Amino acid sequence: MVDPKLEKVIQFERTRPDVHGDAHPKKLLRAIVEDGDHLTKLSEQHIYSADQFDRDTLLQLFRLAAKYEANPDRFTTSLNGQILISAFYEPSTRTRLSFESAWHRLGGDIMSITDRSTTGIAKGESLRDVAEMFNNYGDCVVLRDSKGESVREMMEALRIPIINAGNGTDEHPTQAMADLYTIFKWRPDLVSDEPGKPLNLVLVGFPAKMRTVRSLLKLLCYFPEVFSKVTVVNDKKKNQMFEAGQLEHLEEFGLNVQTADDLYDVLPEADVVYINAISWEGNSFKQYGKSYHLDADSPLKSDAIILHPLARGEELSTSLDNTPHNWYFSQARGAVFLRMALLTCLVKRAERVLDVI
Amino acid sequence: MVDPKLEKVIQFERTRPDVHGDAHPKKLLRAIVEDGDHLTKLSEQHIYSADQFDRDTLLQLFRLAAKYEANPDRFTTSLNGQILISAFYEPSTRTRLSFESAWHRLGGDIMSITDRSTTGIAKGESLRDVAEMFNNYGDCVVLRDSKGESVREMMEALRIPIINAGNGTDEHPTQAMADLYTIFKWRPDLVSDEPGKPLNLVLVGFPAKMRTVRSLLKLLCYFPEVFSKVTVVNDKKKNQMFEAGQLEHLEEFGLNVQTADDLYDVLPEADVVYINAISWEGNSFKQYGKSYHLDADSPLKSDAIILHPLARGEELSTSLDNTPHNWYFSQARGAVFLRMALLTCLVKRAERVLDVI
Amino acid sequence: MVDPKLEKVIQFERTRPDVHGDAHPKKLLRAIVEDGDHLTKLSEQHIYSADQFDRDTLLQLFRLAAKYEANPDRFTTSLNGQILISAFYEPSTRTRLSFESAWHRLGGDIMSITDRSTTGIAKGESLRDVAEMFNNYGDCVVLRDSKGESVREMMEALRIPIINAGNGTDEHPTQAMADLYTIFKWRPDLVSDEPGKPLNLVLVGFPAKMRTVRSLLKLLCYFPEVFSKVTVVNDKKKNQMFEAGQLEHLEEFGLNVQTADDLYDVLPEADVVYINAISWEGNSFKQYGKSYHLDADSPLKSDAIILHPLARGEELSTSLDNTPHNWYFSQARGAVFLRMALLTCLVKRAERVLDVI
Repeated sequence: MVDPKLEKVIQFERTRPDVHGDAHPKKLLRAIVEDGDHLTKLSEQHIYSADQFDRDTLLQLFRLAAKYEANPDRFTTSLNGQILISAFYEPSTRTRLSFESAWHRLGGDIMSITDRSTTGIAKGESLRDVAEMFNNYGDCVVLRDSKGESVREMMEALRIPIINAGNGTDEHPTQAMADLYTIFKWRPDLVSDEPGKPLNLVLVGFPAKMRTVRSLLKLLCYFPEVFSKVTVVNDKKKNQMFEAGQLEHLEEFGLNVQTADDLYDVLPEADVVYINAISWEGNSFKQYGKSYHLDADSPLKSDAIILHPLARGEELSTSLDNTPHNWYFSQARGAVFLRMALLTCLVKRAERVLDVI
Repeated sequence: MVDPKLEKVIQFERTRPDVHGDAHPKKLLRAIVEDGDHLTKLSEQHIYSADQFDRDTLLQLFRLAAKYEANPDRFTTSLNGQILISAFYEPSTRTRLSFESAWHRLGGDIMSITDRSTTGIAKGESLRDVAEMFNNYGDCVVLRDSKGESVREMMEALRIPIINAGNGTDEHPTQAMADLYTIFKWRPDLVSDEPGKPLNLVLVGFPAKMRTVRSLLKLLCYFPEVFSKVTVVNDKKKNQMFEAGQLEHLEEFGLNVQTADDLYDVLPEADVVYINAISWEGNSFKQYGKSYHLDADSPLKSDAIILHPLARGEELSTSLDNTPHNWYFSQARGAVFLRMALLTCLVKRAERVLDVI
Repeated sequence: MVDPKLEKVIQFERTRPDVHGDAHPKKLLRAIVEDGDHLTKLSEQHIYSADQFDRDTLLQLFRLAAKYEANPDRFTTSLNGQILISAFYEPSTRTRLSFESAWHRLGGDIMSITDRSTTGIAKGESLRDVAEMFNNYGDCVVLRDSKGESVREMMEALRIPIINAGNGTDEHPTQAMADLYTIFKWRPDLVSDEPGKPLNLVLVGFPAKMRTVRSLLKLLCYFPEVFSKVTVVNDKKKNQMFEAGQLEHLEEFGLNVQTADDLYDVLPEADVVYINAISWEGNSFKQYGKSYHLDADSPLKSDAIILHPLARGEELSTSLDNTPHNWYFSQARGAVFLRMALLTCLVKRAERVLDVI
């Protein structure tokens, strides 16, 4: 007989609601009409910047992600015979495993590089030459590098698609896509024929320095009618908060962007609170906005949701984990399905998973 | 024409008896009657401690391991579509590859973490958060960590099974299972209806510090009738050799535990000699019992077998490798099949490999 | 609408001629008559040195490589159920990924070791013991190690095949096979019934120190009639350029080996120029022949081709990349198919891919 105390420790429940944040991928799936052409055309593109998308392509990707999330065991062979080169020259476990899980879930094989110091690059090999090597070795590349320009250098020589999985302080487009996918999973009505009330989004972060924030703001531009207001909360002055031209770009697309330095001033009105505290600069990360914290006692609307790209620090208290505000775990889970959708398209396998061909 | 000297060097024989220690997995397979219920119930448990098992569950796992070992090419797709997260925060090649080989042999895919310093944990991310990430990314986790409490912390948040693959000085249950499996592979009669003479086991090691020894002693408790005597050989005093309560626990289960500080006093009577010299403490390993050595001239019974969890140091001479005492290579090989058996059960695929469903 | 400048950046062409150096794998395939016996017998050999081959075995391997290269999507399951142990104790990305890509392209699974410091070897475990472990865990080993003797030590205990993927300054036989495969891909007539003019080969490198050069020279010995002259270009004196016996060995096989210290003296007559500047010695690489450079203005015959094992340094200018002299990218690509051919044979799967069984 096992000690009952030990027995309790070792038991686990697979069926416990597996996300905090009760996702509705089926509702989102039904809210969007399939149009495969937007997906098949992705096979001729690198994924470099949030700027390169359009509203319809994003919606189709979200639809496919929702289809995967609603049927997690159904598409296990779509990438058979395909090889991913997972090149994380800047250390990362979360993003690397998210991509690798997405690829494996679809039946593909993977070659990983997890340490720049063991590569030819350390010996002075150019990224162009590395890209030529990758052309011969795989079918798709995922690259994270601390240097903003690395992905561009590789793109010049690649004949297989590459995904920018974070390039310095510049961009991280698939994270932003996962963020937006989470919002629409929560409120599928917003992309349906009968959209409900638009959202008041509070974004705690530093647009000039944080790649996740920069990419997300760019994606919001494709859905200006969905966001009644976007309030960027930061302890910098407005002219430091944004880099040159960044705010103007957002406003051009019709986004109503405000700023604030007191989180609690704007929190009570927020429908969605996005928070991030980390920026990658050079070879290490910096923390910003140390005065901003969210916890279970923060003045949140009862139905407000919180998003965080994770990993988190002190800015996001674990006291929120078991509250209905917690959609950041759902966000992390959805990121796998979003990446599955994107990867499928990049390697020309979209037709295998479309409803209508 | 190839130089005959070179020709001799490059030739190898696949058919040379591939273990020192002639295994009888088929005999063990036949000695145990299948009872699948003990296996299917494992799918709701983490594998944390040798304490959590019972005699019947272990026997069923050994039976399945023997079935795999007797038919190594038969079950190559049982884990198709399943993803293992192989997280070795404490460096290890032997155990990591043993688990990964087991998983691959059954057709599953793997994501590896081989270096704690490249992970979010290095930046202060909690293991609970890492566990939440793993819930989304894989179907099973194997964890090795120098910190004893890490596996417990992850278990609190996991909704997929985790295997403790060595947590500091605490436990290493699958190694102990592989050790015991080897003994029964050598002497299947001991678990049959007509058991032969019970075993005199000499165990050279340090129960208070070595996780392999600690877990093995716990497992022996389920088979007290199989071991007429267990003699722990160590150069410490008895009250330092064991930690508080450890010896009492063993005696409660009916094990006849003795201690000795002179190996050669007890060696001539031993049927099974288990030896280990390494303990993981903090971030490095310590060697204990440097005065104990086994070699081909040691006073062993002609039919005694030697077990060692490997990697070995000077305590185990290579002069024993080509003697019939060498069952440590068979033990290493069997560990792969034992882990195949356990992993199959954890991810709910036992029904695919049972004889009777 | 996407900014046209961005659009141009993210677009890529899969159909752009995917090698500089227009390969003719089909012509090579047709030039060699299949004789599977030479391939099936490879399953009882380790791949250790270029010395161990013969002309016919090499030709059959080149034929199979050409078959793979001509039909890259046809043989995706030949290694299903097989596990490769990819052990790169000396850091390498290019060769590791080349082997891993080859294995994955054929449907096999892989376990990688990319850092010696995380292994038991760092703790003093012997390579013989590591080899015994590998016997239990995988079906084939690829080893790179800075120590010349490591592969020999492992071979003594292995019952599965191992490939020497670079052992110190000694050998790198599969690189040399890929080099020669490239030459025959370019000039299939040379192994046909009606061979054209033999080749003048200029080899910029250091035979006494560079493993790639050493292995290539050995392979040339099987085809003395193909090379009218082999000129080794180096700034050392002739008696330092070669190690004891090396030059004599080449001449015994009928190779016409010359030396030169001025590259431009011999370049105008060269049909094939092979250049390498790096040698692995101890735990780091050394550069040799810094005075030798090739660029688009070098006095090359219009139809001369350049080979380089890569990664390159300043010795090979990128100004050559878009010229017809560039066969080094084709060489890197072909290396994957060459390794596919060899690996298939080693793990006894040749019969699955032969035309005639």
